[in-house]
Amino acid sequence: MTDDIEAVLAANAELYAAFEHGDVDRMEAVWDDADDVRCVHPGWPLVTGRSRVLRSWSVIMANTSYIQFFLTAVDPSIDGDLAVVTCEENILTSVADPDGTLSESALVVSTNVFRRRGGRWRLWVHHGSPVLAPAGGPEVEE
Amino acid sequence: MTDDIEAVLAANAELYAAFEHGDVDRMEAVWDDADDVRCVHPGWPLVTGRSRVLRSWSVIMANTSYIQFFLTAVDPSIDGDLAVVTCEENILTSVADPDGTLSESALVVSTNVFRRRGGRWRLWVHHGSPVLAPAGGPEVEE
Repeated sequence: MTDDIEAVLAANAELYAAFEHGDVDRMEAVWDDADDVRCVHPGWPLVTGRSRVLRSWSVIMANTSYIQFFLTAVDPSIDGDLAVVTCEENILTSVADPDGTLSESALVVSTNVFRRRGGRWRLWVHHGSPVLAPAGGPEVEE
Repeated sequence: MTDDIEAVLAANAELYAAFEHGDVDRMEAVWDDADDVRCVHPGWPLVTGRSRVLRSWSVIMANTSYIQFFLTAVDPSIDGDLAVVTCEENILTSVADPDGTLSESALVVSTNVFRRRGGRWRLWVHHGSPVLAPAGGPEVEE
């Protein structure tokens, strides 16, 4: 079980490493080789199907000159050959601008669902969304 | 398999019916009775744990005088005892305002992950996010 968690966490980390490196081949390897994969980029509508999902990543990576993720609250949960990882993506990115390069930071919360295929954990669903609520979030504490 | 899909779709519909009716008991029955449930309301940070998740719904429902969901693009995918449903929530809601009741509409895209426990599909993860991109979404078509 500990090994499973480590493997799931490695698969989760690889998603962000592939993005940071802008590596299309690594991104393709992250995703399950199935047509029911689906992906929501922050603020986007749903993208479905392997080819469209990978194309969306290629478009995003081609338009990102620099990005770095600091993951916090990484929380894996495994159920047989399925795993859910939720995490906070603390993002530092550079955006090309006519007046020079701007740095931006953002907070995104993501749900990543993996399935194990032939011993490898591959990404089935990625859903990222912008955190718009004030720090600390709405009042739901007990 | 057809029966499975129907049962998953019914579980998915029940989430929204419980919300529309502001019914805390039905909402409690929707969610898996486990502490690794997690929930992202649109624009919110992650909420984890059954009691906090249910409390967040109670707070939201208590502050919603009227809400109606028109679900589109409902897309279920089943893998053993796990199921993912993505859907678009076309939301019509009333918001109390000092100047009277306002109607608002919004588009949210959601990923709902269910697991089957004792023959019942129960919600493990709900992740809803606002669609901020222009209609038709970013250019990722082939």
